[in-house]
Amino acid sequence: MSQISTKPPSGMRDFLAADVARRRHVVAVVQEVYESFGFVPLETPTIENLSTLLGKYGPEGDQLLYRLLHRREKLQRALGGGEVVEGDLADEGLRYDLTVPLSRVVANYRDLPAFYKRYQIQPVWRADRPGRGRFREFYQCDVDITGTASLLAEAEVCGAVATVLCRLGFEDFKILVNHRQLLRGLVAKVTDVEHEGRVLTSLDKLDKVGGEAVIAEMVAGGVSPAAAAEVLAIIEGLKRADGGVPEADFAPEAFAALRELFAMASGGPAGPHLSFDPTLARGLSYYTGPIFEIAVPGLAGSCGGGGRYDELIGMFLGRKVPAVGFSLGLERILLVMEERKMFPELAAGPEVLLCRFPDVPATEAVRVASLLRAAHRRVEVYPEADKLGKQLGYATTVGARFAAILGKAELDAGTLTVKHLGLGEQRVVPISEAASAIASWG
Amino acid sequence: MSQISTKPPSGMRDFLAADVARRRHVVAVVQEVYESFGFVPLETPTIENLSTLLGKYGPEGDQLLYRLLHRREKLQRALGGGEVVEGDLADEGLRYDLTVPLSRVVANYRDLPAFYKRYQIQPVWRADRPGRGRFREFYQCDVDITGTASLLAEAEVCGAVATVLCRLGFEDFKILVNHRQLLRGLVAKVTDVEHEGRVLTSLDKLDKVGGEAVIAEMVAGGVSPAAAAEVLAIIEGLKRADGGVPEADFAPEAFAALRELFAMASGGPAGPHLSFDPTLARGLSYYTGPIFEIAVPGLAGSCGGGGRYDELIGMFLGRKVPAVGFSLGLERILLVMEERKMFPELAAGPEVLLCRFPDVPATEAVRVASLLRAAHRRVEVYPEADKLGKQLGYATTVGARFAAILGKAELDAGTLTVKHLGLGEQRVVPISEAASAIASWG
Repeated sequence: MSQISTKPPSGMRDFLAADVARRRHVVAVVQEVYESFGFVPLETPTIENLSTLLGKYGPEGDQLLYRLLHRREKLQRALGGGEVVEGDLADEGLRYDLTVPLSRVVANYRDLPAFYKRYQIQPVWRADRPGRGRFREFYQCDVDITGTASLLAEAEVCGAVATVLCRLGFEDFKILVNHRQLLRGLVAKVTDVEHEGRVLTSLDKLDKVGGEAVIAEMVAGGVSPAAAAEVLAIIEGLKRADGGVPEADFAPEAFAALRELFAMASGGPAGPHLSFDPTLARGLSYYTGPIFEIAVPGLAGSCGGGGRYDELIGMFLGRKVPAVGFSLGLERILLVMEERKMFPELAAGPEVLLCRFPDVPATEAVRVASLLRAAHRRVEVYPEADKLGKQLGYATTVGARFAAILGKAELDAGTLTVKHLGLGEQRVVPISEAASAIASWG
Repeated sequence: MSQISTKPPSGMRDFLAADVARRRHVVAVVQEVYESFGFVPLETPTIENLSTLLGKYGPEGDQLLYRLLHRREKLQRALGGGEVVEGDLADEGLRYDLTVPLSRVVANYRDLPAFYKRYQIQPVWRADRPGRGRFREFYQCDVDITGTASLLAEAEVCGAVATVLCRLGFEDFKILVNHRQLLRGLVAKVTDVEHEGRVLTSLDKLDKVGGEAVIAEMVAGGVSPAAAAEVLAIIEGLKRADGGVPEADFAPEAFAALRELFAMASGGPAGPHLSFDPTLARGLSYYTGPIFEIAVPGLAGSCGGGGRYDELIGMFLGRKVPAVGFSLGLERILLVMEERKMFPELAAGPEVLLCRFPDVPATEAVRVASLLRAAHRRVEVYPEADKLGKQLGYATTVGARFAAILGKAELDAGTLTVKHLGLGEQRVVPISEAASAIASWG
């Protein structure tokens, strides 16, 4: 035995046939729904220049980037010149998300539509500590609309993800909604805006740790006790609206925008799921307007989130491009669907194992398999001249529902034996009718 | 303007909507055909341990591997201890092909079927010099059958790729076939087997450079002029069989195997395309039996190749596992299909742009779009309150065939205007019938 590990690297996974079937089921729904909303696909390379990636995800994100080591002369040069630092060793890295590549694409292809509605379903890589449902290679399913400040764009991305979740069989999800300017207005009303970051991070934990702990954390971060208590009181007041958008005496534009968004979305699939949550903060600093997060009962963390980010897309262009987006996390969705057994029966593997008695030439098996495949049956041919019992046992191993058996006498008569492995019944049918016999035999 | 390049890195590509549609068209055919042959999907991670990858592709291949730079403490340790060499800086790299990951998977999952028939359609990465149709990130579409020495496995993988190419519209391709032991037997008959590598490399160029140059190259490599001439004479003799498998007085098992394979395949889709080519060598040293390569007129290089490799799959298991595989190169297939205009019309982007007069509330657009989408139409909603002419112009930009226009009066009457942009005609229809009106209007 070799000493080399045959497991995938830490945080990485192999997907065998049943895994691939489940992943494809979800991806197919996401893709079909996103396209029904008029989004068009984009795929960008796994590898991006570090000049594109660095400085976009904060210092912690930069630490999680996978960098590609220089090769040959470039590496020799880097190693040959005295002290070596990280920056000398790499100028390319792996895609960390799908939003920065989108920004690069919007800057690079000037003939994109004015309102570029793209979706992208691809893996991203982060050298994070692996954990339950957290991997170093994972898939994001993003929709974004660039080029418009209209709230209809928010309504559309929320409608798209709501439709995806409904089509997958989720019924009890909420799309939590808040507005970045609402939180900023709240902080400005009560204390100094310099405390915005601290207040947001603390409020984000309210559901988990409770009001007192949140106040304590704000105070520890330099907010006065009176201001911290007032923030909490206002938040508690806003929460009494029970998911609707309440009245308030601050951040009037943010509240007006949320009210308009809720009204707009009420005609569509997101309507019943939108729920105002004044504590929602979303970590990423690049959001500028409404922010969203999906909440599914029983799932710690979220299946996805998004929001308006009017400053990011234009960064490579040198001018402002308004944008709004929503990202679904494929792994989180799969996790919940597996726990709740939400998958339909997914066809995978051969339907028919073609067996033959040893006196039947292999070319006959090739010929009959071709006929069945041309009639849209999925057929595996047993490759060796084993005893029939062993061949039939193998049919069960690969999950085939039928065995088709070629014998010399039947073959001379133009027939074969079809055996339904679940029912244990068998029929002799003309070869030309075997495909339809299989298709119609439950 | 930012100074940062917005192009993808060298050898990498962005795929906009039309590119993705063409790629998906091919991949869908490959996938469906491979599944009809009873192959099941496998996906492996982008990142593999270098201990898995190194030493499998020869010294030149190892040079082309992308390695991932260590991070944080591990990098600091590597840089802090005197002279730094490449091996200190990385222990993970990017997938270079799909065969080595398959070997790892076969070793890692012991409950796979005895004859594991897997297909895998994923990108691989090689830090090669980019060129026409040659990229640093490109897709391979592999089928492999492990666990059997039966020639039926060869017939099946050839049948699968032949069916793919026929279904895509190729008619004039050949599957060139040779046998690694035939070449070895030829060398042994004429000269010393130590010359095998040199003879193979030289013969591989016969079509390009002609017989005299091939002889000269063999002689320059140490083969005696008499032996070199004899090799060429035998090859020319074998080629007179014009693609069939001739008789010969050496390598009897190899010739018998090829004859059996041709007979077996004659009943299936590969039959008319198989063509014996005694000069076919295939670069990879790991082949042990029949070898294949697809030849398409007018394409320098190949759309794919494969063969039997009985030593490789078991390398992580410590025992021999026979295997045969065939790999199609997605990029090469796309290149030929684009040049020959072999793509059908591929639906992409919205069918309908939903426009509205400024006095119609956006929530009505959301509502009507939802109805059309529920009836399987792909609908984009124009997000802003621009003049109708501008909205209709935009419909053409995004390639929509229809504009659906919401006006206040029609809306009150429960109707909307559907405009066929190609015909320039328009109809007022009840909103509830709009989807079917669009679907049935050529």
